[in-house]
Amino acid sequence: VFNVAGVPIEWEEHYVGTEVDPRTESFLTWESLESVRRNKVGLKGPMATPIGKGHRSLNLTLRKELGLYANVRPCNSLPGYKTRYDDVNLVTIRENTEGEYSGLEHQVVRGVVESLKIITRQASLRVAEYAFHYAKANGRERVSAIHKANIMRKTDGLFLKCCREVAEKYPEITYEEVIIDNCCMTLVKNPGTFDVLVMPNLYGDIISDLCAGLIGGLGLTPSCNIGEGGICLAEAVHGSAPDISGKNLANPTALMLSAVMMLRHLQFNDQADRIHNAILQTIAEGKYRTADLGGKSSTSDYTKAVCDHI
Amino acid sequence: VFNVAGVPIEWEEHYVGTEVDPRTESFLTWESLESVRRNKVGLKGPMATPIGKGHRSLNLTLRKELGLYANVRPCNSLPGYKTRYDDVNLVTIRENTEGEYSGLEHQVVRGVVESLKIITRQASLRVAEYAFHYAKANGRERVSAIHKANIMRKTDGLFLKCCREVAEKYPEITYEEVIIDNCCMTLVKNPGTFDVLVMPNLYGDIISDLCAGLIGGLGLTPSCNIGEGGICLAEAVHGSAPDISGKNLANPTALMLSAVMMLRHLQFNDQADRIHNAILQTIAEGKYRTADLGGKSSTSDYTKAVCDHI
Ligand SMILES: CC(C)[C@H](C(=O)O)[C@@H](O)C(=O)O
Ligand SMILES: CC(C)[C@H](C(=O)O)[C@@H](O)C(=O)O
Repeated sequence: VFNVAGVPIEWEEHYVGTEVDPRTESFLTWESLESVRRNKVGLKGPMATPIGKGHRSLNLTLRKELGLYANVRPCNSLPGYKTRYDDVNLVTIRENTEGEYSGLEHQVVRGVVESLKIITRQASLRVAEYAFHYAKANGRERVSAIHKANIMRKTDGLFLKCCREVAEKYPEITYEEVIIDNCCMTLVKNPGTFDVLVMPNLYGDIISDLCAGLIGGLGLTPSCNIGEGGICLAEAVHGSAPDISGKNLANPTALMLSAVMMLRHLQFNDQADRIHNAILQTIAEGKYRTADLGGKSSTSDYTKAVCDHI
Repeated sequence: VFNVAGVPIEWEEHYVGTEVDPRTESFLTWESLESVRRNKVGLKGPMATPIGKGHRSLNLTLRKELGLYANVRPCNSLPGYKTRYDDVNLVTIRENTEGEYSGLEHQVVRGVVESLKIITRQASLRVAEYAFHYAKANGRERVSAIHKANIMRKTDGLFLKCCREVAEKYPEITYEEVIIDNCCMTLVKNPGTFDVLVMPNLYGDIISDLCAGLIGGLGLTPSCNIGEGGICLAEAVHGSAPDISGKNLANPTALMLSAVMMLRHLQFNDQADRIHNAILQTIAEGKYRTADLGGKSSTSDYTKAVCDHI
């Protein structure tokens, strides 16, 4: 592990196993979970769950086991990388443990299946708390709760009720509620109107990818998972992109920006700024760009350019 | 009812009641449902469900009572009305009777609520059948099934299985499966890559609004509901917009284009073309535009301009 920004970090490295660890019932090793629990902070690479073996998704296992209840995904237009939008400056905060991701599904009779969407007061309150806390700590002015409570009155209704309760405690933050279909329409027409968005699991999954698309794709969007006991696990939003794996073609920006989020969490703000600025400069100059952004640079050439800017 | 395009239609008019009709348990009158059942075709204005009285949503009641199983929402960039996108030319086909709209919700214990998402083989097959039939009849080349089967393996999995079965019968149509988060990202980056999209209820709700946003908003997007026994009920995608109701400000384009869809269904293709072209011309000229499109025209002035073009 190399260190160009002078951050005093000692890394513990853990690999996804090739065998199922019976203690986690997944390819995630018990040691890797223990490491995050102990250090309370981590940087995670994309993981693909080996398919066809019926094992639990690695990402979902991680979220459940570590109680990663809030998934924070900032999304900002990058000066210098032109898309149709230049004024995106928002953060999606996604409930990360329940909702449509409960895993509770069954066949009622042949040809009739059902999935359970679970919303709890506890999980809704804690993600709402986190969203308002985040808004305040980051000088943001508005929190929009995204929902479909006109249809799912009880589940999304409970989610909204919890958001309203928390909103009361933050009179300095404007609170609004936006129906998800309308939210998506406004995001593509006028994303600049949004600030912090908080929402149940699936809506967060959908909207964070939509937002990534506005600024240029998943090569650019970092995230950070907030977990029980103050855990912060940073990761890129993108998956493991098996089609380009090993070809030195991937865009490392999302993972670098995730590392920046991790550094800010650790209060290494100077180092975070240096790395962040180096990334922004490299992208703005436009000389080194990976294929997803229409460029021809390899991962390593682009990374070297960023390091040179540090 | 005036008739500038010379369409030989005799209208039956039905109003949403002010009292709950016990036979429908909603403000929809039994007569209005019977009228659509008998005529098998209708044009519906936006309806707002009176709130706070715990009555069933008018729109959902209509969909259920008439078995409106497929909601067809074409979305095309309009030459002359500039947005960030100029190559949108797609159709979303939404399952319209089940999924997350089952209405089955309950509190498990205090602070824990659940909603049931129901997917059936029957409803999935019939909407898939309709999507492929539509693609073929309209010279479209590709059907994309939108899903989240990596998480909801059983429900969305069943939906996909049904789509695959139907796809087999249409070897001339390309079939693909796209995960909803990825779909939304691609829609905002490159909507021109999509053709016909078929999907469960909630995804259709979200994606059709997103797509409307790409071309300028809900003032422009028509739809048509296909129901049991060959019913075709056309309606604008937008709601009743109570904030501008009665002010002569609404954009009637979506409803007009819905009427055009209805006419095509009735095989009045010449008349449909005349009205459609008149709308496109009026928008392209840009002299008369309603406020949602940045103009200053009243509903009636814009409508008169369209009629003049007919
Ligand atoms: C890979 C998948 C399980 C995951 C999700 O659906 O949450 C991903 O799309 C994400 O957004 O992190
Ligand atoms: C008004 C609402 C119930 C409806 C829906 O959610 O289906 C609307 O958003 C739509 O898309 O037709």
